Amino acid sequence: MSYSVGIDLGGTNLKISLVDSRYKIKDKKVLNTRNFVRKEELIAAVVNSVNSFIRVNKLNKPDISAVGLGLPGPIDNKKGIVHFFPNIPGWKNVALRKILAAKLKLPVFIDNDANMMALAEYRLGAAKGARNAICLTLGTGVGGGLIIEGKIFRGSINAGGEIGHMPVNEKGPKCNCGGVACLETYIGNKVILAKAKKIFGKNITLEETSRFAAKGERRARKLWQDAGERLGVTLSGIVNLINPDRIVIGGGVAKAGNVLFDSIKNTIKERAMPVQAAHVKIYKAILGNDAGMIGAAIMAKEAGKI
Amino acid sequence: MSYSVGIDLGGTNLKISLVDSRYKIKDKKVLNTRNFVRKEELIAAVVNSVNSFIRVNKLNKPDISAVGLGLPGPIDNKKGIVHFFPNIPGWKNVALRKILAAKLKLPVFIDNDANMMALAEYRLGAAKGARNAICLTLGTGVGGGLIIEGKIFRGSINAGGEIGHMPVNEKGPKCNCGGVACLETYIGNKVILAKAKKIFGKNITLEETSRFAAKGERRARKLWQDAGERLGVTLSGIVNLINPDRIVIGGGVAKAGNVLFDSIKNTIKERAMPVQAAHVKIYKAILGNDAGMIGAAIMAKEAGKI
Repeated sequence: MSYSVGIDLGGTNLKISLVDSRYKIKDKKVLNTRNFVRKEELIAAVVNSVNSFIRVNKLNKPDISAVGLGLPGPIDNKKGIVHFFPNIPGWKNVALRKILAAKLKLPVFIDNDANMMALAEYRLGAAKGARNAICLTLGTGVGGGLIIEGKIFRGSINAGGEIGHMPVNEKGPKCNCGGVACLETYIGNKVILAKAKKIFGKNITLEETSRFAAKGERRARKLWQDAGERLGVTLSGIVNLINPDRIVIGGGVAKAGNVLFDSIKNTIKERAMPVQAAHVKIYKAILGNDAGMIGAAIMAKEAGKI
Repeated sequence: MSYSVGIDLGGTNLKISLVDSRYKIKDKKVLNTRNFVRKEELIAAVVNSVNSFIRVNKLNKPDISAVGLGLPGPIDNKKGIVHFFPNIPGWKNVALRKILAAKLKLPVFIDNDANMMALAEYRLGAAKGARNAICLTLGTGVGGGLIIEGKIFRGSINAGGEIGHMPVNEKGPKCNCGGVACLETYIGNKVILAKAKKIFGKNITLEETSRFAAKGERRARKLWQDAGERLGVTLSGIVNLINPDRIVIGGGVAKAGNVLFDSIKNTIKERAMPVQAAHVKIYKAILGNDAGMIGAAIMAKEAGKI
């Protein structure tokens, strides 16, 4: 049996998995990203985890064909370099692929985490069978991954897919990216939490607002309907531009469920051009928190060719 | 020498050209689209023009390898069917490729006109050498053609590239497409003419406003700066999404020149993400009114493979 290792690094968790040739997870570790103050510590934890997979599962190193990492920031996937991570300090122009390959003595591939989520959903999840798909992860940031003609589309210098930084309006809130009125300034989870606090007059979790909305609570429904409308406006533009088969939406914010998805679907139906709107299907991501790891394993296994 | 025929049908003109194997125009006819009341008359004019090219240029039919048409509306380029033309009545689900091929006894290929403009600029014009390019034609409508990884990208059902129907704002003018606040509702030439009339208190042509702007006339400059800003907002989103090498802008409205282009460039620089904004180059289209014909000839010559 041939295995590969898929790793998903986020601002909160470092998730490491051993997957078989059908991309089923055979072993898994979840570590706290914040425990690693220096990048060398994080790299050592990855190396230790892979070695522990081999030991515990009674494998030999040649049983593992490759290691793939999905990373939260701009990556040069061809050269294997991390430009930087917006939410994890201490990483700047790190030749991570080379460093890890030398330590692990295994082929290593790295890419952007949203691309890995898109790849996993395309090959095994809600975008399976689509030729062109738009994948989003709704969290602190709004990440995007594009599948174009059956392949990850990374843009000219691997900096595409930034759906969260498409403007919803000419004028509006200033965004961390330097832009104005970006989608993320309306539906990033911190923004929604702040709105919820204002509406309910107290701290409230996203899960609670989702539960309230599911029960029909008017203010909670309005909160998620508004978020869905904003996302629907941006997606209407993308539907007219790309004419995709499918849009797949995952991440914590997507757990709001039907009230959010109905609002997105209605907005696209109302605003996108009729032919494109009738063609596109909107689905919830189905691989959940594992999508990034599995996508990274697929990418590595297929030797960075996709 | 091998020739092909490139045809560009617009709401105003039917332009037909004989091009050589290097896509230089050897002969050309410009007819008035409105002279053809029924579609059969327009088809007959195409057939007569091709036969006249052969006769006048002392060719034999086998000297012409194919005939390509760029058409102003949604096209099924694989089946060779015109769905309809928004601005030319009488065309609905017309199997134009089959009809023309039977009459001409030549291979015929049809596609959307904005795609043909993009193809011509990519192969011979301002997008030459780019791997990913966004091409726009600014006229009554705002047309778009995408070059992705060196090929025309048509979307899943050949309905992509509708840059003119990406929303600039959540709220705004109702668009003919059924959408709201589409780019076209801000910078379509009729909209700009109406604004100019209001500003100057009389009917004024786009050329006059451009001339005034070039001379530094304040109100005319503002008119074109505003148009550039709106276009720049939409393009900022596309730059973040697609991360293209180049954006190429043509069509009548693009003749406004530097005041428009400076405003577009400044807006992208201010609003798009720094890495993507620094990478993309914004150029004026260089093939002018011939781009559609030449693109159609390229598409036909290469047998619809691109």
